[in-house]
Formats: sequence, structure tokens, C-alpha cells
Amino acid sequence: MTKRGQFITFEGSEGVGKSTQIALAADALRSAGVDVIVTREPGGTPMAEAIRELLLAPRDEAVHETTELLLMFAARAQHLYGRILPALERGSWVLCDRFTDATFAYQGAGRGVPEERIAALESLVQQAVRPDHVILLDAPVETGMARATRRGELDRFEREEVAFFERIRACYLERAQRSPERYHVVDAARPLAEVTASVAAILQSLRQ
Amino acid sequence: MTKRGQFITFEGSEGVGKSTQIALAADALRSAGVDVIVTREPGGTPMAEAIRELLLAPRDEAVHETTELLLMFAARAQHLYGRILPALERGSWVLCDRFTDATFAYQGAGRGVPEERIAALESLVQQAVRPDHVILLDAPVETGMARATRRGELDRFEREEVAFFERIRACYLERAQRSPERYHVVDAARPLAEVTASVAAILQSLRQ
Repeated sequence: MTKRGQFITFEGSEGVGKSTQIALAADALRSAGVDVIVTREPGGTPMAEAIRELLLAPRDEAVHETTELLLMFAARAQHLYGRILPALERGSWVLCDRFTDATFAYQGAGRGVPEERIAALESLVQQAVRPDHVILLDAPVETGMARATRRGELDRFEREEVAFFERIRACYLERAQRSPERYHVVDAARPLAEVTASVAAILQSLRQ
Repeated sequence: MTKRGQFITFEGSEGVGKSTQIALAADALRSAGVDVIVTREPGGTPMAEAIRELLLAPRDEAVHETTELLLMFAARAQHLYGRILPALERGSWVLCDRFTDATFAYQGAGRGVPEERIAALESLVQQAVRPDHVILLDAPVETGMARATRRGELDRFEREEVAFFERIRACYLERAQRSPERYHVVDAARPLAEVTASVAAILQSLRQ
């Protein structure tokens, strides 16, 4: 019987280096003979990517916060049932750039959507499925924003003010504190090689 | 102070004449000096229409039932908060081609999504908002399907079998029976003029 893969999400706000760390982690796991898929939220399947495009496109019409929340979870349902769970069942590890923690952080703490509305959708969509492990790349907001600005990444979320990102960071840290067995907080303000080494050590421990 | 408009939905399965009756009802109300907007689900705003297109487009990827349900309610949230409620506040009547009753009928009774999942989303998205009145155009399934087939309307939903539409019809009738003060069942198997007269009589009673 194939052993189920590990479902590992990478979280953190803008500029903490999620994409870089996921790519390096996937390389390291593959070198160690682990079957890995790398994916992202919102997105991950053609339908979910189409929903992501709807969400990110600038438009004249104000998008109601409930609409945004439901679109996020619609893409997530498609991604989870169409791609993530089948990969885990095949024995692949799944490295995912953001998942439901990001909804609690961005829509919840960031935009003020009540946590219980998000939790209700989490249960409705995911039932008991949660990431096996969450790697939280944490850095002071100024550090992350300076990096994101240098890269010229200014989408609808990133135009928001510093206070918004402070709330996001605090929410992530609080969630990590509540479930320390599943969350791994990595200091992402350090030089790249050190962050990479920390992530590698975590993944190594999960392969035992 | 402007008197709030009435929120009236038209429900029923394929071929019962919803579009025709809504157009005639809007004309009659406008002739009587009532401000009316006509809209439809899923859709009703550019964003909601874009979600509708995502839902109806044929695609290779199987759309998970939870994805479909959340997209329906995402479009509904946008439609409700962006168009329906503002119109009602201005004093307009809103005639809407399908609303949440259709979700209970099609996704619930038709496709087997548990009623409580739909009810949970209904509360999450609409809070206490429900249509003031539902005009249920009811006809035997064979009558409706024969009409829809003659019109060449065969989308993803309409290719389903007769049993599916029987469950939909039964669900609509049961919902009407549970809340007779809000639901008005119209026998839509009769000639057009008679159906139109019945709908007109209902609308007349609501203007008292």
C-alpha cells in the first residue's frame, strides 16, 4: 500500500521568500527521492486558475467581501479535491504556496471578515482536511514590503498599508502558537542560505 | 422616506416559461407606475456574469460539487449586495429569474448536495435576506422538457435525465408548501394567457 504523502503549506506575507523556498524545498526533496508536486492558492487547476484570475483582475465593480471569500473557497475546493488529495493518495508530497491560513490572515485579520465565517467555510469545504505541516516564513513587515516593492509586485493586495500587513503577520504568528505541533515558524529576515537551511531541517525531520 | 421595493423571484424547472412571465410581469408593473428591475441568477452584475460563465462553460476538468455550490453563492453575494439590495432600498421592485430556491432544487434535490450545506451558505451569504415572494411556475416535467427541447436549449443541466427534473419539481413544491405565505404556485401547464393572468393577479395583490 502506498504511504500517503505529506501536505505542507508555505505561509507568510509579501516578500518573505515563499516562492524561492518552495522551489528549493522541492528540489531538495526530489534529490532525496521524494515524489513532490508544487502548487499554489488560489489556483492549482485550470478551473481554479480561472477563479484566481477573476479574483485578481482589477475591475470597476467593487467586489463584495463575501464574494471574494466564496471565490477563494471555490478555487480551494477545486484544488483540494481535483489535485491535492489525489496527489497525496498517490504518495506524493504536496508543497502548496498558501492555503486556508492565508484566508484567515488576509481576509480575516487583514480585511475584517469574522473568523467564524472563514472557519464555517473551512469546515464546509475541507471537512477534516488540514495541512499536515505549515511552514510559516516570518519577517518584520518592513523587510517583506521592501523586498516585494523592489520586485515591482504591486497587485490589489499589496497596495494596502503597513497596518494591514502587521495584522496579517500577527494572525499567522497567533495561529502558529495555537498549534505548535503543525506550525513551524522560520525567521525569514535572515540571509537566504540560513532560511533555506532551516526549511531543509524541518523537511528532513518530517521524512523520519 | 422611500418605501422599500418588493423582492420577487420566479422559480421552476426548464420550459415552464419563467423568462416570458418575468418580461410580461415587468411590463405590467411598469404600466402601473412601479419602478422595476429584472435580473437573473446566476448573474446580474458583470462580476456575477463572469462567475456564471465559469459555471456554465463546458470543460474537460470535472467541476467538484462544492466548487459549483460556492461559485453559485459567490455570484449570489455579488448580485445581492451589488444590485438587488441597492435597488430595493431605492424603492424598485426586483424581479429575479431564480434565486436560492433553485440551489436547493438543482444542487440539493437534483444533485444530492445535502440541504444543510446549502442552508449554511444561504445564512452565511444572505443573513436574514429572503425573497419577499416566490412565484413558482409549476408544470409536469414532460411538459417543460418538451418546450425546452423545442427551443434547442441543451446546456449542461438540461442533458440530465427526467428523474433529475422530477426531484427538482418535488423540491420546489415542498418548499412552497412549507412557507405558503411567501410562495405562490402557478399552474404553468395551462395556455400562456391563463398563466400570465394568474401571475398578474398575484402581483396585483402584492401592490395593495
